[in-house]
Amino acid sequence: MALGERAEIMIRTLASISAEPNRLVRTFLSPEHRAAADLIAKWMQAGGLDVSEDALGTVRGHWAGEGKKRLLIGSHIDTVVESGMFDGPLGVVAGILAAEHFAKAKRKLPFGIDVLAFGDEEGVRFPATLSSSMAVAGTFDVERLQISDREGVTLREAITAYGKKVADIPAAAYDPDVAAAYVEVHIEQGPVLEYRNQPLGVVTSIAGQTYLNVELLGEAGHAGTVPMMLRRDALAGSAEVILLAEKLARATNGEVVATVGVLRIPAAAANVIPGNVALIVDIRSGSDSARLQFVDVFKAEIRILAEARHLGLVVTETRNVKTTPCDASLQDAMAAAISATGSAPVMLASGAGHDGTAVAKLCPIAMMFVRCRGGVSHNPAEYASPADMGLAVAALIRFIENIKL
Amino acid sequence: MALGERAEIMIRTLASISAEPNRLVRTFLSPEHRAAADLIAKWMQAGGLDVSEDALGTVRGHWAGEGKKRLLIGSHIDTVVESGMFDGPLGVVAGILAAEHFAKAKRKLPFGIDVLAFGDEEGVRFPATLSSSMAVAGTFDVERLQISDREGVTLREAITAYGKKVADIPAAAYDPDVAAAYVEVHIEQGPVLEYRNQPLGVVTSIAGQTYLNVELLGEAGHAGTVPMMLRRDALAGSAEVILLAEKLARATNGEVVATVGVLRIPAAAANVIPGNVALIVDIRSGSDSARLQFVDVFKAEIRILAEARHLGLVVTETRNVKTTPCDASLQDAMAAAISATGSAPVMLASGAGHDGTAVAKLCPIAMMFVRCRGGVSHNPAEYASPADMGLAVAALIRFIENIKL
Repeated sequence: MALGERAEIMIRTLASISAEPNRLVRTFLSPEHRAAADLIAKWMQAGGLDVSEDALGTVRGHWAGEGKKRLLIGSHIDTVVESGMFDGPLGVVAGILAAEHFAKAKRKLPFGIDVLAFGDEEGVRFPATLSSSMAVAGTFDVERLQISDREGVTLREAITAYGKKVADIPAAAYDPDVAAAYVEVHIEQGPVLEYRNQPLGVVTSIAGQTYLNVELLGEAGHAGTVPMMLRRDALAGSAEVILLAEKLARATNGEVVATVGVLRIPAAAANVIPGNVALIVDIRSGSDSARLQFVDVFKAEIRILAEARHLGLVVTETRNVKTTPCDASLQDAMAAAISATGSAPVMLASGAGHDGTAVAKLCPIAMMFVRCRGGVSHNPAEYASPADMGLAVAALIRFIENIKL
Repeated sequence: MALGERAEIMIRTLASISAEPNRLVRTFLSPEHRAAADLIAKWMQAGGLDVSEDALGTVRGHWAGEGKKRLLIGSHIDTVVESGMFDGPLGVVAGILAAEHFAKAKRKLPFGIDVLAFGDEEGVRFPATLSSSMAVAGTFDVERLQISDREGVTLREAITAYGKKVADIPAAAYDPDVAAAYVEVHIEQGPVLEYRNQPLGVVTSIAGQTYLNVELLGEAGHAGTVPMMLRRDALAGSAEVILLAEKLARATNGEVVATVGVLRIPAAAANVIPGNVALIVDIRSGSDSARLQFVDVFKAEIRILAEARHLGLVVTETRNVKTTPCDASLQDAMAAAISATGSAPVMLASGAGHDGTAVAKLCPIAMMFVRCRGGVSHNPAEYASPADMGLAVAALIRFIENIKL
């Protein structure tokens, strides 16, 4: 069977493991995580890999190489609520199929391969994410053990209930001399590859992110009795803020994206001029300097805009995450591997976060994006074709064959 | 004691009658309505008026004139939730003080005076309003008896529980040959008089109103992965709609006001491009033709705007209330009366609805506005000064002395 068809069958099988009958929900350290991990382990064993599990439940399939260095290939098997089936599993399945290719051929490489199936990328159960990839990178902070899920179960208790020992977390970390590189295959979760009519892309960086909470304070008033010229309408001011964010982001020609996804009018009523509006601006870029410059200009311009409307303004930065660059030589190798399989590699930044963000603290990372229909993700309609997934596995195999670690 | 001080004491006393200890709430046909009506009746009797109550609970204080014609003077004694104390009661109290002026002087006028204390202007308890003034105007529709409050009590049941008979509603209607005119004193509920530095205004009309529900349909997407140029962001489109409404209203130089007070993003999340936004546009004007023209231009321009962004657009007109003009000769008489008390009458439209909207079906109407601090209304901070209220009562007396009915 072709690689793409195999990938699809494996992904569909994995998608049948859900906490709910009518939609896909698989959260960290849940019974479904356990069942999915067992299935992954079975596939790894069938593919000729040696299977183990670390203290955070990450399934590891190892194929020994000639030296002590290893190439890590990973992604995650947890999902959002009402998830699609490709986000995460594609990368794990692609890793298994690629490693199996070498294991079945009994072809020794100068480095070993570890396929990693992480369980905490979506951050759905606990108010934090990337616990499992942080443990692998050796950056897991024990304070995190105290956070709780909605039922009040702490991460510490959840790890114990999963049959693991908190004391074993440090042992999950790779020796930096062993972990030579990390590679992840993932659906794009955006429309660029589809728009460019190409199946595969090379990620240049995982975007940094700033969250600004913007609160505008005007004066509430009766919609019928306050003349337009005497109004201090916080929603009209917010409309300018939204369009400013869009205008500035468009002007960067793709370097920065900015989104207002949340806007709240306290005590909203159709016949009341909004006196107070709060909104959140999500700003991302593959370039930290471009993002920080955007934030500076944006803050300065909304100050002018608020002053012109006699609105009070409170801006709070609630998130400031640096860009994670992908390794330049690994990017080149990935682009060459994609070209070798017959498609033109599209170089693009990842606007979403990934396990690679955490693993980048350990070793150089690379990511391959796979086209997904309509750019849709975090939705049951998420879809990547068997043909594109087959090309992705083939390119991953080619990448492994040719890289020097 | 000066008229203004008397008005303030009466209004404060009335404000002590509330369904809640820490804020003013007095709804239609409630125990507090009963208590307030009893207090009003006591004041009317003390002022020399003959008191009756109709089937909707409207308290009527009558001072007989020489002919059968009567001047109606009214306003309402129900309140919004967490109300100020002046909105409504000022007009009833001013009417009582003015009628008392003639009754105490035993000065017969060519027409009688009926002071009316309506109980259903704010529309808080039932999903409809102006029931009591409609009954007076003879336009009360019996179908309305079937509407229910949040506890499932129908208007019919509430009227019965208040000790009234539904069968008596037709008798509440005035004979059009008797009701010669209606006048209402009310706080402005807006900032124009304060801005113009004048205590009193003459209402030219009660604004007509259109409500448009505007729904924009774009495409939800990941805030990090969809390039700006590939977005169909329903919130960015909504921002343009909000600013368009503001721009078009400003361009009318006070003839039309437009407000977006409600904006809803279903399934809003900071990292999701809004795929769907619904907002309500409240459009008012003293001129029906100006309002309807505004609505036409606005609809045409948002269609262009939505098309430019490839957004779906659904516009639904959920309200279309005509302007209620105030009688021209009564306006002149009111302006002359205000001038005679020493201030310059400001001519202005009422953006808010009033009992006069209903009574205008019966007879010519006039309204006097009284300056309120900061234009604030529907709020405990609502305030009109004793000096301004005293001028209002004096002008009302002068108006009554000089009009020909």
